[in-house]
Amino acid sequence: MIIEYDGTDYAGWQKQPGGVNTVQGVLEAALSHIVQEPVLLTAAGRTDRGVHARGQVANFRTESAISLERLMHAVNGLLPDTVCVRNIREVPDTFHARYSALVREYRYFILEKRSAIDQRYAGYHGFPLDLERLNLCAKEIVGRHDFAVYAKGCSSAENTFCTVYGTAWGRHEDMVVFRISANRFLRTMVRFLVSAQLGASPGELEETLRTGRLLKSLVPADPAGLFLWQVVY
Amino acid sequence: MIIEYDGTDYAGWQKQPGGVNTVQGVLEAALSHIVQEPVLLTAAGRTDRGVHARGQVANFRTESAISLERLMHAVNGLLPDTVCVRNIREVPDTFHARYSALVREYRYFILEKRSAIDQRYAGYHGFPLDLERLNLCAKEIVGRHDFAVYAKGCSSAENTFCTVYGTAWGRHEDMVVFRISANRFLRTMVRFLVSAQLGASPGELEETLRTGRLLKSLVPADPAGLFLWQVVY
Repeated sequence: MIIEYDGTDYAGWQKQPGGVNTVQGVLEAALSHIVQEPVLLTAAGRTDRGVHARGQVANFRTESAISLERLMHAVNGLLPDTVCVRNIREVPDTFHARYSALVREYRYFILEKRSAIDQRYAGYHGFPLDLERLNLCAKEIVGRHDFAVYAKGCSSAENTFCTVYGTAWGRHEDMVVFRISANRFLRTMVRFLVSAQLGASPGELEETLRTGRLLKSLVPADPAGLFLWQVVY
Repeated sequence: MIIEYDGTDYAGWQKQPGGVNTVQGVLEAALSHIVQEPVLLTAAGRTDRGVHARGQVANFRTESAISLERLMHAVNGLLPDTVCVRNIREVPDTFHARYSALVREYRYFILEKRSAIDQRYAGYHGFPLDLERLNLCAKEIVGRHDFAVYAKGCSSAENTFCTVYGTAWGRHEDMVVFRISANRFLRTMVRFLVSAQLGASPGELEETLRTGRLLKSLVPADPAGLFLWQVVY
């Protein structure tokens, strides 16, 4: 399934105990109700609290004989307005939404001027951004690096190496957009990388990745601006 | 002032007694607090409950000597995230946001496919729309007509003639957009015109305007899709 959600009111993708509102929880409940058996979802990425998705991918196994079209229609009828299934198809038994993914792309949207409409889906900077400088910083992120310094709450045993395939700052209508694609992402990594670039001079990003030391303390960028955009298999 | 708002949680623009949440009410309270005197706003259009604005225009008089830049910054600091002032400037004493307006433009956005992100700012149709047919219908609206049949709650004494300058159906990214500009609009007029066109054959719109009789009972389109887009003076 390709899944879209407005993450504003969710505590992230991943199911949590104790009545916490999560996208996985809401989606599994709706699917289980329709196929009349417990559903366990495997997803491409665990988005954090408040983060949105245009193209989250998740798979599950079912014995149900319901047609895909009816299933999608039925589940969208049960889901709240803020979550929907955009597409659904059968996959081979070897498919795994997380491990089969080759490339994940995130996009981060920023407003340079206040907007009452776009603020729901963007971070707010309040000043004109220098895209030439930002693109110099963005280039330093590309490649295979240890991103531990940009990951929050990673255990030291965890693999913190990621290969970033591409980065770019651009404009889309009234917003500035940062695009980043990689084989994998660590928790809070994109939001910390956005903040780091907003405050960095060329050369500084490369230095943080080489030395594993931040030049200043960082606050991750507002989750409202972040979208899991697409996953390539 | 040029004002933008997300109308989802507001009972429309116009102030109402008894603690009803309105855009005018929220904005007058913030402005009064800053200029330290009562503020009465005159606006270009009274948008209905749930309708948004990209370019509402409102003016007020004040004795305050505060600079425009500081006023805009201060009022945006006090306003909820869902309302903001995009621009502010001084106008001649003869300016009246409602009576000086020459052209008002509304836009209505429609989703043909479910979207969890865009649904906040669009109506949902669920089927592919035939823009060629819709543009034939839209042409029949252009000109000076009595729109009483598309106005809800107009008294019979009210002038229900409007001159529509232009209409067009088009696409913008994943959405279908209906644009309409006129010298004035009646209450619910755009939302009823959208519904009428979605269900009409070419010739029917012209007939309703000529005879003052609807061919079928109409439900106004979802306010979530409607934006007061801009006002020309």
